[in-house]
Amino acid sequence: MTEFQPQDPTFASRVRASFDKQQFMATIGARLTRIDPGAVDIELASRDDLTQQHGFLHAGVLASAADSACGYAALSLMPAGVAVLSIEFKINMLAPAVGERFRAVGRVVRPGRTITVCSAEVSASREGATVPVAVMQATMMAVRDRKGVSD
Amino acid sequence: MTEFQPQDPTFASRVRASFDKQQFMATIGARLTRIDPGAVDIELASRDDLTQQHGFLHAGVLASAADSACGYAALSLMPAGVAVLSIEFKINMLAPAVGERFRAVGRVVRPGRTITVCSAEVSASREGATVPVAVMQATMMAVRDRKGVSD
Amino acid sequence: MTEFQPQDPTFASRVRASFDKQQFMATIGARLTRIDPGAVDIELASRDDLTQQHGFLHAGVLASAADSACGYAALSLMPAGVAVLSIEFKINMLAPAVGERFRAVGRVVRPGRTITVCSAEVSASREGATVPVAVMQATMMAVRDRKGVSD
Amino acid sequence: MTEFQPQDPTFASRVRASFDKQQFMATIGARLTRIDPGAVDIELASRDDLTQQHGFLHAGVLASAADSACGYAALSLMPAGVAVLSIEFKINMLAPAVGERFRAVGRVVRPGRTITVCSAEVSASREGATVPVAVMQATMMAVRDRKGVSD
Repeated sequence: MTEFQPQDPTFASRVRASFDKQQFMATIGARLTRIDPGAVDIELASRDDLTQQHGFLHAGVLASAADSACGYAALSLMPAGVAVLSIEFKINMLAPAVGERFRAVGRVVRPGRTITVCSAEVSASREGATVPVAVMQATMMAVRDRKGVSD
Repeated sequence: MTEFQPQDPTFASRVRASFDKQQFMATIGARLTRIDPGAVDIELASRDDLTQQHGFLHAGVLASAADSACGYAALSLMPAGVAVLSIEFKINMLAPAVGERFRAVGRVVRPGRTITVCSAEVSASREGATVPVAVMQATMMAVRDRKGVSD
Repeated sequence: MTEFQPQDPTFASRVRASFDKQQFMATIGARLTRIDPGAVDIELASRDDLTQQHGFLHAGVLASAADSACGYAALSLMPAGVAVLSIEFKINMLAPAVGERFRAVGRVVRPGRTITVCSAEVSASREGATVPVAVMQATMMAVRDRKGVSD
Repeated sequence: MTEFQPQDPTFASRVRASFDKQQFMATIGARLTRIDPGAVDIELASRDDLTQQHGFLHAGVLASAADSACGYAALSLMPAGVAVLSIEFKINMLAPAVGERFRAVGRVVRPGRTITVCSAEVSASREGATVPVAVMQATMMAVRDRKGVSD
């Protein structure tokens, strides 16, 4: 649980419905594994078709999971009918992304009516240990009344 | 062409061979379409399985192509036997990533023995027009003599 | 000159009046040296009291000038009565910030009603040569009708 | 205290001596108020000559204090004779930088032989309350045997 109060009591089902529409998350095998107010986890298993040239998970895959975790952490605090778009994010790689599974933990750092700042940590499960592999700092924007953009 | 002189005359084949080992680039349908010294283009076609919840290309897909374009722009200026890893990148989304095709143009801003700073622009081809959709600023590190990490 | 059309014909005097209220720019000896639509230059002379431990200009001074250049590049395209705040910025140092003078060139990459993305390059004048020392990518927000925040 | 073990038992005096050479910290009235292994605090009082146009502390001042806090957090874990340079940093502003005093808390996220990743939080003391005003994610580089660059 987190310190934040959701404005929409149905936030979890709204986050889940939106995530299920992110076809790219299915493409990389990512699943929502936690939805709390202001905190969302996304997990995926290592797969050869997600790697870069050295056999590590591609930084873009880490960024994709972390960006979605941040976006849904932000969405979990929005009123009904308000969508969230990524304005920008910055990610640092901390260690080679090697392991059996990866988890991106996205958290709201500061919610706002228009701008919500988030952070994410990505860790690998590697032979029973948890190894931090990336950290992200991201800026999300609430979008109201824009055609074709909801939740 | 660019202002930079490659240190390895076989830079283009080295970049291509490394890119071909990035299985994630094949997963998202990305192809190398230019390799100049310090400048690399990567292109991909729009596909439903690369989208986020509003039907736009997922920001993580844009980031993946831009990160690889930056990394290979950096690698094109490295001596033989030196590998490149992404330390970090930051990407701003400029417009909804909608279009038939996308191109990430990665460029070296400043090469260095250890640290190379790069930038990338991602644009969409949309009904005959070219629309900028994202810009990236990235930091790459040259890696020498590390087991399991080459090119 | 740039490709952008200002919405407020008095943009230059508005930018200048706001810059003159940034007391910190006076503290570091920074001056506005160009105001075009979507492009603003800020210059300062090297001074010992702006340095870090190795005698280079402190990265925070480079960031301060670049942030203001980006902010005023964004403001130059805003309608009258709209203020600009920095949401975030990211800066890469390219070379030791050594020289007699420094210039930050801020440019709008993409203007928007709420969000404007900017970039800046900072260069040093060093014994007659111009040396790039930093690049910034920044996100600015237009603020309307907020008490105490104008221009 | 932090989880990190310093490699140089005199780390605190080394950090203090280096900070005292950062003339820009004196210019903005910043003081070192904590030096633990991997964690450094820098504080400064609000002053009119550090403000931007709305009377808030300039984002560049927040960035300067946070960058130095990150750099010294990294330096505290380095062996004797190794210097630290900022490769890049990214800062998000969370709230107007208004208050009587400001504190930047820099922490090492992941130490490394060459690259150390840090984060910082900047908060304002405002009428007895502590208000977070900015967060930074930064990349520091260890520098060995470079002329003119030590500690």
